[in-house]
Amino acid sequence: MSSDHDERSAEDKLIARYFAPIAVHPGALGLSDDAAFITPPPGHDLVLKTDAIIGGVHFFTDDAPQNVAGKALRVNLSDLAAKGARPLGFLLSLALPADIGERWLTGFAEGLRSDAVLYGCPLFGGDTDRTPGPITVSVAMFGSVPEGTMVRRAGARPGDRVFVSGTIGDAALGLAVRKNANLGQRWKLAEAQRQFLLSRYLLPQPRNGLAEAIRGHASAAMDISDGLAGDFAKLCRTSRVSAAIAAARVPVSDAAKAAIAAEPALLETALTGGDDYEIVCTVPPHKAESFRAAAQAAKVQVTEIGAVEAGEGVRFLGADGAALAFTRPAFSHF
Amino acid sequence: MSSDHDERSAEDKLIARYFAPIAVHPGALGLSDDAAFITPPPGHDLVLKTDAIIGGVHFFTDDAPQNVAGKALRVNLSDLAAKGARPLGFLLSLALPADIGERWLTGFAEGLRSDAVLYGCPLFGGDTDRTPGPITVSVAMFGSVPEGTMVRRAGARPGDRVFVSGTIGDAALGLAVRKNANLGQRWKLAEAQRQFLLSRYLLPQPRNGLAEAIRGHASAAMDISDGLAGDFAKLCRTSRVSAAIAAARVPVSDAAKAAIAAEPALLETALTGGDDYEIVCTVPPHKAESFRAAAQAAKVQVTEIGAVEAGEGVRFLGADGAALAFTRPAFSHF
Repeated sequence: MSSDHDERSAEDKLIARYFAPIAVHPGALGLSDDAAFITPPPGHDLVLKTDAIIGGVHFFTDDAPQNVAGKALRVNLSDLAAKGARPLGFLLSLALPADIGERWLTGFAEGLRSDAVLYGCPLFGGDTDRTPGPITVSVAMFGSVPEGTMVRRAGARPGDRVFVSGTIGDAALGLAVRKNANLGQRWKLAEAQRQFLLSRYLLPQPRNGLAEAIRGHASAAMDISDGLAGDFAKLCRTSRVSAAIAAARVPVSDAAKAAIAAEPALLETALTGGDDYEIVCTVPPHKAESFRAAAQAAKVQVTEIGAVEAGEGVRFLGADGAALAFTRPAFSHF
Repeated sequence: MSSDHDERSAEDKLIARYFAPIAVHPGALGLSDDAAFITPPPGHDLVLKTDAIIGGVHFFTDDAPQNVAGKALRVNLSDLAAKGARPLGFLLSLALPADIGERWLTGFAEGLRSDAVLYGCPLFGGDTDRTPGPITVSVAMFGSVPEGTMVRRAGARPGDRVFVSGTIGDAALGLAVRKNANLGQRWKLAEAQRQFLLSRYLLPQPRNGLAEAIRGHASAAMDISDGLAGDFAKLCRTSRVSAAIAAARVPVSDAAKAAIAAEPALLETALTGGDDYEIVCTVPPHKAESFRAAAQAAKVQVTEIGAVEAGEGVRFLGADGAALAFTRPAFSHF
C-alpha cells in the first residue's frame, strides 16, 4: 500500500483515506512505502500467523463491515494468544468486489482501527485489489515471545490437566440460529440468549489477556477454531499423548445449556462445531493452581475439563463414564 | 496450517502432502502447529510485505500452476529487493475454487518449492480455504536488513542519478500479445521475441541479486509494478523532488524495440504499463560508479536514465528535448 500526496490513483486515495490512519507504527511509514520494517524486541522471537476469511464462507456478506474487520483480525489474534505471544501488528490483503463502496470501507476501516487499538496491533501494510469473487480478507499477524518460549501443540505429558477458556459451542449454535430463524423458538431460547449465541458467531472474543498465563504455565496449547473435539485431538496427536475429557465439565453458556436441554443432540454440535476461538491447553499438575490464579488475575474464565494420559486418541466421557461417539468429529472446509 | 499424523481432515492431508515439504525452517514446525516462529538475526530489522494475485485479474486462470505460485512469490520478492532486504520466508493464504484438484495443487506446490529454494525463502505457515470466487493467492513475505538500513521511497536528492534494472515495458507488451494473438504479426515480431514478451508477463524476474548493491548505494528505491512513469513519480513525490528522464535512455529489450518500431505509440505502453518488476532507484553521483560495479558483480543490468532535480513532477523527455505527455500515466486496479 502507499499513500500518495497528490492522490493520483484511486487505490492510493483509498489507502490514504481509510488505512493510513491505522498505520501508527513508525515502521509502517504511514503506508507511503512499498514495505514496512520493524525492529524486533531484543531477545524475542517473532510469532507468525496468517488466516483469511471469505464472504459466504466464513462470514455472511451482509454482516456489518466493522464485524468483518474484527473477525479477520481476531481469528489471527486468537492463535497468538494460544501461543503465548504478544501482538505486534499485522499486514492486510484485501480483495473487494466491484460493488463495495465508501460506506462499507468506512465501516471496515473503523472495525480495523478499534481492534488495532484494543489489541495493540497496528497495521503495517497491505494490498487492495478488485476481485470478481467474494470479499476476501487475508491477515498476516505477527507477535513476539521471549526467545524459545512459544507454546506449541507438542509438549503435553501424561498427568497434565486440560483447561479451556470461556465457554464452548456458542458460535456453532449461533451459526445454526443465524441460518435457521426458527431454531430460537424450537430451542426455547430467551431473546437475550438467542442474541448471545448470534454474537458469539459474529465476532470472536480472542483470549489475548490469557497469553502470559499460558506462556508461564502451559505445556501445550492451541486455539479452538474447528471444534474442541477435533482441535484437542490434533494437540494430543502432535504431543503423542491421549486424554480423557469429562463432557459434563466442558463449560457451556446458559444459552447453550438451554439449547442442549431442549435438544440433547446439540451437545455434539457444541463439542465439535467450529468458531469458538477459545483456548485449550494442558498444564502440569504442580502448576495448575498457579495457572488458575493467573487466569483469574487476567479476568479470563478457565475450566479444568480432564487429564492427559499415555497412549493415543481423545475420549469424551459421558455421565455414565462411557465414551461419546461423534458423527462428525471436526469441522473442515475440504 | 497443520499437518496431521492420522490425516483426519482433507485440509490436513492437503497441507501434509503439498506444503509441509516446503516448510523446511525449524520455526515452521513442519506446519504441525498453529503458528510459526523465527528468531530475527541480531541487529537486523524485519522487512514486511504482502501482495495478493487473483485469477482473471493478475494472472490467467489457465496459466500453469507453477507460474501462478512463482508470480505470487516474486511480486513480493521484488519489493524486498528494492528495499535492500534479504528474504527470510513467507506465509501463504490460499483460496481455491471447488474445481481445483490434485493436478493443479501438485504443480502449484512445485512452483512454490522451486522458488523457495531459488530465493532462500521457505514457507513458514499458511491457510487454505475453499472460495466461490477465483483462485486467490495472498503472500506475506518477510526479509531482513541491518537495523535502520531499509531503502525507502523517500531519500532521493537533487543531483542523484536515476537507474533502472533490466528492461522496461516487456510485461505490458506481453500482456497485450497474450490478450490479442494478432499483435505479434502486426508488430512484426519474430516468434522468439513474441515468446520473450509473453514470458516477461507470465513470470516476473525479481532483482533480488541487486538488493545489497541497492542497500549500499541507493538514496531511494522502489520496484516497478504499476509502470515506470507512475511508480517513479510516486518515489519523487515521497522524496519531495522532481526528475528529468531521457525516454531514449530507458532500456528496452530487442522485442520491445521491434514492437515500438512497428507502432511508435507503444513507447507509452512500455513506460507506463504494469508488471515490470524491475527496480528504479536514485544514487548520489559520487556513488554511481561503485553502484555500476556492484550491479555488474551481481550480474544484473542497470542503466542510468536521468537525474533528480529540485521541484515537483517527473518529466520524460523525447529526442527533441520536449516532455512526453502520457494519456494514462499509471496502472491502477481501482
